[in-house]
Amino acid sequence: MADPAAVSAPDAPAPSLSDPAYRSSIVDLLGVLAYTELSAFHRLAADAALAPSLGDRAAISAMAVAEFRHFRALADRLVELGADEQEAMEPFVAPVDAFHESTAPADWLEGLMKAYVGDGVGADFYREVAAHLDPATARLVTDVVADTGQSGFVVATLRAAIAADPPVAGRLALWGRRLVGEMLAQAQIVVGEREGLSALVVGGLDGRLLPQLDLAETARMFHRLTEAHTARMQALGLSA
Amino acid sequence: MADPAAVSAPDAPAPSLSDPAYRSSIVDLLGVLAYTELSAFHRLAADAALAPSLGDRAAISAMAVAEFRHFRALADRLVELGADEQEAMEPFVAPVDAFHESTAPADWLEGLMKAYVGDGVGADFYREVAAHLDPATARLVTDVVADTGQSGFVVATLRAAIAADPPVAGRLALWGRRLVGEMLAQAQIVVGEREGLSALVVGGLDGRLLPQLDLAETARMFHRLTEAHTARMQALGLSA
Repeated sequence: MADPAAVSAPDAPAPSLSDPAYRSSIVDLLGVLAYTELSAFHRLAADAALAPSLGDRAAISAMAVAEFRHFRALADRLVELGADEQEAMEPFVAPVDAFHESTAPADWLEGLMKAYVGDGVGADFYREVAAHLDPATARLVTDVVADTGQSGFVVATLRAAIAADPPVAGRLALWGRRLVGEMLAQAQIVVGEREGLSALVVGGLDGRLLPQLDLAETARMFHRLTEAHTARMQALGLSA
Repeated sequence: MADPAAVSAPDAPAPSLSDPAYRSSIVDLLGVLAYTELSAFHRLAADAALAPSLGDRAAISAMAVAEFRHFRALADRLVELGADEQEAMEPFVAPVDAFHESTAPADWLEGLMKAYVGDGVGADFYREVAAHLDPATARLVTDVVADTGQSGFVVATLRAAIAADPPVAGRLALWGRRLVGEMLAQAQIVVGEREGLSALVVGGLDGRLLPQLDLAETARMFHRLTEAHTARMQALGLSA
């Protein structure tokens, strides 16, 4: 992760919720994360219909339930901040739904791969963003990431499927590439359209980064996310 | 509820899991309840797509998550008893799925009504059955019922919809009648096909009821379930 101290003014204030611009950015951030988790809950619950056994169905359902818990924690924080949870999520419904429509899994393994890639890239993104937040919001975002659900089940199932039918690896590698591409493309659109979100993601609002660094810093963050994704694909024995 | 003491042998033993016939009935009972809860989770999560607002979607999703919690508690008990949770659920997949296919809600209100009727009749049935169980299993079944989820949301939403559009009452009353009919019919088929379940539901296995009372007792139980359902429909201002 880049060291923001390198470009800080020595007396830069920590971000505070009493700053209206920062607060509005936080409402945007919690809104997009909350809707992302709520829709992940529904997609995973729907993917359960593809499960080859009752045990697999129970396991993916447990993952869906973990996403709902994340949604609830983020939405509760919106309410604590005096925001309306529905209003905060509303601007992000269309892009998140569009992402899911363009990446509907064709079968059980594609659904698992989507959960694996989505959780992995999502967790990395949460950690990147947490570095720019006030302590209370940073703690919430970090707690949500720490509740990682059951990715052990996903990794074991994908590995076993690849071992049982090696040609499946090529298809899944391609699918993983497509998923991360669509995910980062959608993220860039969303961040680009919401000024406060953009400032937050690359640290512009905490007074420690100079505005002209935003573009370069965004590019670096996307590079870090892609590198970590590659490592996760390799952990499955797939080329990213 | 009928008083089993009235027909008890004075020295009747309490039901015990060391009795293989009783244990096998309990595995059947936990299996059918667990699969009912797991499929309720999936149906409610799918019904969320019908929700008119993000708030409604979050509320019905929370109800789905409560059903998953019930599933997990029942399945964990199966594992504690040394049973295989998948095997225990397997015999009940076809009838429970058939029930859901024959009662797919056409819209949001029908989905809520199904949740309301299903939770209500289900809770009454759990309480009836708990009276015939060993203390540990009875406690589990009672705890699951006590975790009632958010039926306040369902009642408030249905009442508001009926107030806003009174003709909707007739359609929902008819739908409620159909739901309880299908539910009791399916329950009778399932209980009839599994001898151990039948003995358990009407108390034949605890040694306190005479076998020839089974039919009459089953009829009385179904009568009590129907009466309680009528009272719940009246609470919504609907005739059952």
